[in-house]
Amino acid sequence: MIRAGIIGANGYTGGELMRLLAAHPKTEVVYATSRSEAGKKVSDVHEHLKGFCDLKFTEASTEDLAKNCDVVFLAVPHGTAMDYVPDLLNLGKCKIVDLSADYRLSVDVFEKVYNMKHKDPRCDIVYGIPELHSHKKIKESRLVSNPGCFPTGASLAAAPLAAAGVIKTVIFDSKTGISGAGNKPSAKSHFPNLTENIIPYNLTAHRHIAEMKQEIQRFQPEVNEIYFTPHIIAATRGILTTAHIILDDKVSDGREGRISTEKLVEKYNDFYANSPFVRVISEMPSLANVRGSNFCDIYVDVQKDANRAVIISAIDNLVKGASGQAIQNMNIMFGLDETEGLFIPSMP
Amino acid sequence: MIRAGIIGANGYTGGELMRLLAAHPKTEVVYATSRSEAGKKVSDVHEHLKGFCDLKFTEASTEDLAKNCDVVFLAVPHGTAMDYVPDLLNLGKCKIVDLSADYRLSVDVFEKVYNMKHKDPRCDIVYGIPELHSHKKIKESRLVSNPGCFPTGASLAAAPLAAAGVIKTVIFDSKTGISGAGNKPSAKSHFPNLTENIIPYNLTAHRHIAEMKQEIQRFQPEVNEIYFTPHIIAATRGILTTAHIILDDKVSDGREGRISTEKLVEKYNDFYANSPFVRVISEMPSLANVRGSNFCDIYVDVQKDANRAVIISAIDNLVKGASGQAIQNMNIMFGLDETEGLFIPSMP
Amino acid sequence: MIRAGIIGANGYTGGELMRLLAAHPKTEVVYATSRSEAGKKVSDVHEHLKGFCDLKFTEASTEDLAKNCDVVFLAVPHGTAMDYVPDLLNLGKCKIVDLSADYRLSVDVFEKVYNMKHKDPRCDIVYGIPELHSHKKIKESRLVSNPGCFPTGASLAAAPLAAAGVIKTVIFDSKTGISGAGNKPSAKSHFPNLTENIIPYNLTAHRHIAEMKQEIQRFQPEVNEIYFTPHIIAATRGILTTAHIILDDKVSDGREGRISTEKLVEKYNDFYANSPFVRVISEMPSLANVRGSNFCDIYVDVQKDANRAVIISAIDNLVKGASGQAIQNMNIMFGLDETEGLFIPSMP
Amino acid sequence: MIRAGIIGANGYTGGELMRLLAAHPKTEVVYATSRSEAGKKVSDVHEHLKGFCDLKFTEASTEDLAKNCDVVFLAVPHGTAMDYVPDLLNLGKCKIVDLSADYRLSVDVFEKVYNMKHKDPRCDIVYGIPELHSHKKIKESRLVSNPGCFPTGASLAAAPLAAAGVIKTVIFDSKTGISGAGNKPSAKSHFPNLTENIIPYNLTAHRHIAEMKQEIQRFQPEVNEIYFTPHIIAATRGILTTAHIILDDKVSDGREGRISTEKLVEKYNDFYANSPFVRVISEMPSLANVRGSNFCDIYVDVQKDANRAVIISAIDNLVKGASGQAIQNMNIMFGLDETEGLFIPSMP
Repeated sequence: MIRAGIIGANGYTGGELMRLLAAHPKTEVVYATSRSEAGKKVSDVHEHLKGFCDLKFTEASTEDLAKNCDVVFLAVPHGTAMDYVPDLLNLGKCKIVDLSADYRLSVDVFEKVYNMKHKDPRCDIVYGIPELHSHKKIKESRLVSNPGCFPTGASLAAAPLAAAGVIKTVIFDSKTGISGAGNKPSAKSHFPNLTENIIPYNLTAHRHIAEMKQEIQRFQPEVNEIYFTPHIIAATRGILTTAHIILDDKVSDGREGRISTEKLVEKYNDFYANSPFVRVISEMPSLANVRGSNFCDIYVDVQKDANRAVIISAIDNLVKGASGQAIQNMNIMFGLDETEGLFIPSMP
Repeated sequence: MIRAGIIGANGYTGGELMRLLAAHPKTEVVYATSRSEAGKKVSDVHEHLKGFCDLKFTEASTEDLAKNCDVVFLAVPHGTAMDYVPDLLNLGKCKIVDLSADYRLSVDVFEKVYNMKHKDPRCDIVYGIPELHSHKKIKESRLVSNPGCFPTGASLAAAPLAAAGVIKTVIFDSKTGISGAGNKPSAKSHFPNLTENIIPYNLTAHRHIAEMKQEIQRFQPEVNEIYFTPHIIAATRGILTTAHIILDDKVSDGREGRISTEKLVEKYNDFYANSPFVRVISEMPSLANVRGSNFCDIYVDVQKDANRAVIISAIDNLVKGASGQAIQNMNIMFGLDETEGLFIPSMP
Repeated sequence: MIRAGIIGANGYTGGELMRLLAAHPKTEVVYATSRSEAGKKVSDVHEHLKGFCDLKFTEASTEDLAKNCDVVFLAVPHGTAMDYVPDLLNLGKCKIVDLSADYRLSVDVFEKVYNMKHKDPRCDIVYGIPELHSHKKIKESRLVSNPGCFPTGASLAAAPLAAAGVIKTVIFDSKTGISGAGNKPSAKSHFPNLTENIIPYNLTAHRHIAEMKQEIQRFQPEVNEIYFTPHIIAATRGILTTAHIILDDKVSDGREGRISTEKLVEKYNDFYANSPFVRVISEMPSLANVRGSNFCDIYVDVQKDANRAVIISAIDNLVKGASGQAIQNMNIMFGLDETEGLFIPSMP
Repeated sequence: MIRAGIIGANGYTGGELMRLLAAHPKTEVVYATSRSEAGKKVSDVHEHLKGFCDLKFTEASTEDLAKNCDVVFLAVPHGTAMDYVPDLLNLGKCKIVDLSADYRLSVDVFEKVYNMKHKDPRCDIVYGIPELHSHKKIKESRLVSNPGCFPTGASLAAAPLAAAGVIKTVIFDSKTGISGAGNKPSAKSHFPNLTENIIPYNLTAHRHIAEMKQEIQRFQPEVNEIYFTPHIIAATRGILTTAHIILDDKVSDGREGRISTEKLVEKYNDFYANSPFVRVISEMPSLANVRGSNFCDIYVDVQKDANRAVIISAIDNLVKGASGQAIQNMNIMFGLDETEGLFIPSMP
């Protein structure tokens, strides 16, 4: 059994890691740390784990974790993971999946976007979207940086077009469930403010743009017009991303002067042929059909009378957008099949 | 024009008073007080009032209010209204509608239920459910106590049966929108906790039982089995009350040994014949059909094979359950028609 | 592997059976029948099964099913299961779990409640609430009748009190998600009619009362005052039942003249000591904490100043209220642990 | 009093016309027609009108309507209004507000977009967005075409930028409540399909694009890149439009090489200075703050590091997007103040 520790296990992503790992045949959670809940039973905070987890929250001791865990998941705010990583790497042999933003970007970009000095600069970042990055590198790395929720859905939507080199402008208009904002009550999560509503925010300056640019420009370096606007919808889970993509004029399938939906669907199918968690589908994606699961459903449509494609992607922000993808990365790091314990249907 | 002041105007009931008074042809809001928001524009807190209210919140000065207002609405927590009432009555001639619990119960019951000493004991309470109490007394009083939201819906559902003297046991199972809990974010109002859910609370000991008993026993003093359990539903506004009423064995319309639904509907229609805001209807009440309005919709059903009636009542907790009923009381106190400015359709 | 067939697999309970069986290590779905969807791929109707089910819907052939299945689940409307059962029993050796109402009641009660002649009267009904019925009998029977969704939650809430012989009157006020009404759009399921609303229906005459009476009177035969009123809440899944129980005067724990909450909790804990899917808990049950799972969470409260207890039970109507309980019964029928493949945490 | 008739009064827009006109001091609804509901009481279909409307639905007789109405509202599907308009104009002197699509576009564009022959081609269309069109022309016309719901929110969001001649590309990503799809239950409006979800549709080919192009090109004829993708959100009312606008390179306020948010807000304020129903606001618009009202709230944001502006507009699709705007047009046509009976706060 892989012994797993979770630092910052009291939040939604921590609870979700434990929910998913409860069904994982080869992993056992042995540490769940939380500053604010230390001493409490895990299942008193995550009530859905009653009967599944006998642990109590403890204070995080990197020494204990490094010694007694095979893998440590960091489910902490950005700026905090970098406090734990060096010790964890030095004090033992555990592998690390960091769900925070600390190691997702190059150091200079990170410092600019997050407006803070990086305490643990590294240049060998492995950014863990397994559908877009080398499994070999993920496997060889002791530290994998788990992507942001929005960048996961957005990058998976646009990557095949970027790989084809045909994007001119891309606008990601994303709609997320409120669980992305955490389990602490706030004005945005106050029921009367969200029900029957949709809340746009950070219209032109959300930090996740940096990750999206990084991923798309890896495939098509010259694209500069990459925009992103998030909205909160009246839902707990899920991110639906509407990628409005203005195509380069050179795109063409001959007869009509532009690519057809059918041809583009084919490209997407080819691109994701070996990705069991990406389903390129012919009906409109639905958050219900990915809820609780690690799938990313993708729908492709090319406008008939214009040089625009609209790509829809749907994920569960807590699973493929966080904890599920973290376990997928763990699976690869430990030489397991990437679907181990994760290939379960959504709950509509 | 009636000059109105609102003490504690920053909460939901304060905002609702101003929304409704904006459509009232004979009233003008001249004071809106709030400790926490003093200095801010009213429409920056109650954004739906943008364009309708130029006031700023002020600190409450009973002297100013007493002198410059014809009516003062108290939208403050229980235990606080009693700090304002004596001064308001003494310093001027204003009338008062108190939306708090302070004057709803006899002093001894209040002190027991709210576990505090009453600073302003009075014996001439006028309890303002205009459908169940004398308009003459409301008109003659300078202080009307506006009922609680649950007791309004519950009492209107059961009063005709109590007046007929046929109740043996009544269980009010109520379902309320979350706005009754106020505009401050909390675990209960946190969207992921309430959506797709229903939250029972205070199963056997909610304070509002005291008001329900007071009202029902006014009509049928010997009834002791009066129970109440509230639930929060995934809605902002509205209270639907399911009144399960075990009827006294003596109830009968002759042939069948018990009253029929038709006969009981007749009784309800007679009882509320002069009550423009109570609609005894033949379809199931819906919160949508009372939303934003001062109506109470009532549906009557007698079980065919048992001595039980189920009465459903639906109100908007912020209107008939609070601010609308307060204005209805104000109308009566000032000799206006009780529907003045209030007879508007719901917004489904 | 247990080969399973599902008759009427196109509805919500059919889809849920397949979702849950996808995670069951010892069962494989080999037939999925549907008159209306015959010929279509199962995963085109149940989109959440994409990648998990390669079957197509077929017409139901009892001969094929009886020969090629070890177990057949009947997920058909009442009045229809009785058309299939005799053939299935005669043509092969398969076991049957019937999710319809056809075999839940004694024949005379069934005919009265469902207002139809029974075509296949049997007296050896095994009613499958495994927490309340003999596992031995379930195991020995080829036909188990799976209970209704409301009766499951209601019976589990009241059974320990009925077993103690202390119920005088019980009123079940239940709140269900709309999925219980099926996947066909209707006025009740029309989003604008249900959102921000709660819809009471069949206030005094829902058919499920008969099952509740049958279960409670098995424990305490003299109780006659058993009432039930259902409501639809703005949720897809879940049933929360508020059981208002007037206790017999004889109930007492000595000192206070009546039982305390603590004592009653003990009774419930004892009663369900061997029931892994019933959790008697000390926080208020939440539909989120049973969603997608086979658990029934129960909360117990005794009113301090009256002879009333309020018991809250929460289940997922599609799991413990239908498909999950059906699989639990199947497990027992095949000599497996009742939790096999079913002991998974809820998805909050 | 203005005598109003409504053809097709049984739908949501018909019900909303009557809800709003119930508060209009100078209009009385005298006819409500409906093929499917003829003979029924209006308030049995629109239950929120109980106590406000004694009419019964009748079959539509253009002769009766033309003779007895001062204004006729057409709340019928596209392709049907053109059957009524010629008769109504010829048989009497009534004015007409057509809420269908029949007269919104030039005949050739209409025939292409709606794929049908126009039976009543006219070239003197008055398109009734009063904030963007001449009140004089609206007043002088007997027939005003009421705009589509999406085009209203989208055009109001983009018009000031188009008027400034600085749009290069605009992508309208709109999110609408389900009431826009009508009161007939469907798969999209089925509660389990919409709750906790968002449904994109017609990604690249919604008919309303034609209206948006028409409006924007009136101000800035050379703009061709006008795109639109709608989504249905889990809400009954409201449209929030996110207008992603790529600005022309020439835009500049000097120092930074591009316009600032502050400057653009100023432009918007100037543009809508005389439009009482448009509020350019400094907090994020919320559907709650326009719900039930005729307001359009607009928020302006210019991206600091790119040539993009994001404009958010929020309307109630049934009010400013349909029935409210129709009454606003009626007010202008009859020489009343455009706010007559319509200047009421939203209901949060």
